[in-house]
Amino acid sequence: MLFEIISFVGKSNSGKTTFLEKLVLELSKRGYKVGVLKHDVHGFEMDKEGKDTWRMAKAGAWSVGISHSEKMAIIQRVTKELSLEEVAKFFEGVDILFTEGYKREGKKKIEVRRKGIEPLCKPDEIVALVTDDFNSGEPIPQFPIDDPVPIADFIEEKFIKFRHVECALWVNGKEVELGTFVEKVIKEVNLALIGTLHDVDENPRSIDLKIRL
Amino acid sequence: MLFEIISFVGKSNSGKTTFLEKLVLELSKRGYKVGVLKHDVHGFEMDKEGKDTWRMAKAGAWSVGISHSEKMAIIQRVTKELSLEEVAKFFEGVDILFTEGYKREGKKKIEVRRKGIEPLCKPDEIVALVTDDFNSGEPIPQFPIDDPVPIADFIEEKFIKFRHVECALWVNGKEVELGTFVEKVIKEVNLALIGTLHDVDENPRSIDLKIRL
Repeated sequence: MLFEIISFVGKSNSGKTTFLEKLVLELSKRGYKVGVLKHDVHGFEMDKEGKDTWRMAKAGAWSVGISHSEKMAIIQRVTKELSLEEVAKFFEGVDILFTEGYKREGKKKIEVRRKGIEPLCKPDEIVALVTDDFNSGEPIPQFPIDDPVPIADFIEEKFIKFRHVECALWVNGKEVELGTFVEKVIKEVNLALIGTLHDVDENPRSIDLKIRL
Repeated sequence: MLFEIISFVGKSNSGKTTFLEKLVLELSKRGYKVGVLKHDVHGFEMDKEGKDTWRMAKAGAWSVGISHSEKMAIIQRVTKELSLEEVAKFFEGVDILFTEGYKREGKKKIEVRRKGIEPLCKPDEIVALVTDDFNSGEPIPQFPIDDPVPIADFIEEKFIKFRHVECALWVNGKEVELGTFVEKVIKEVNLALIGTLHDVDENPRSIDLKIRL
């Protein structure tokens, strides 16, 4: 991925959504593009009955989109729930993606846990704990649940600012971890190939290649 | 793009939406994944006040998504309206994408025009005309507005069935037209590179590469 994914996990009623709302506000104020992904188990209704987009979905359209000068929206059918990695592709362009839930799939997890609520994860499963109970003594960074500033600093420093991925590769939809050498080879070979093409911007800043076999 | 984009255009009140609804139904029944994109000028409201997703957008999130076992949805801010090519990236996986509107940007256009409604396009600007008035004598394929079967046959044959793009490249967000030779070189070079990697599926069916500089 071209951005980090952090999953906020916690028992239900732990205060995840309210906390996340504050954190999103804080990082957005700092100028970052924050993506938020919610895992839904009940089935959601995003569109309004009778609208053109609703009619197209009703007629069987696989995906329905609407585009406007301030925002755009897409509703897409799936045959089974998309993996976190698959959904993440829709967030291209964000600086960081937060998920609510995705306990099992999340690679970097932060637990939100209010006093009196049972722990969900072991200390070695999470990168930080957000809590109002600092007496747990767990050997991981802990941040207050009612103030988004300290955790925003932590996330900015650790997961946004120094992130600078240059090359990412997916084969059959699965991301391939690239070592420094391989990344450089793939990057340089493709830049060389593209450099031979006519009518192509001479200062490539982004290259996207799709091959289907 | 890995699929064709067909823009349905026509004067307002030409019957575009009702016609498109029937066509989407027909092609979906045939098993195709149809994408539909609507160009919106008024501003739309997709989410419901008070919902978690709505709260995150309100807090300033750049994109908000919700994922479920049957569908997923994304609402994303934009600083200016995305081009047709930019939005089309969100439709990956469809067999064909229909747009309503996008008269200026659409590459392949079909006009919907009921009797008594003024023409919008010249014959050489469109690939077909959908109408209830077959006496216009225009030298382009014409199809009935009240029966989606003939036009679905036409679209299936011409724009879905024999479509088999193997390699597509974007530089700085703009698609680069690849000749047969260049496409083959880029494809084979990358397959060779990927073939040297460990832990990668030996039968690549899809390869996605992103380079950011």
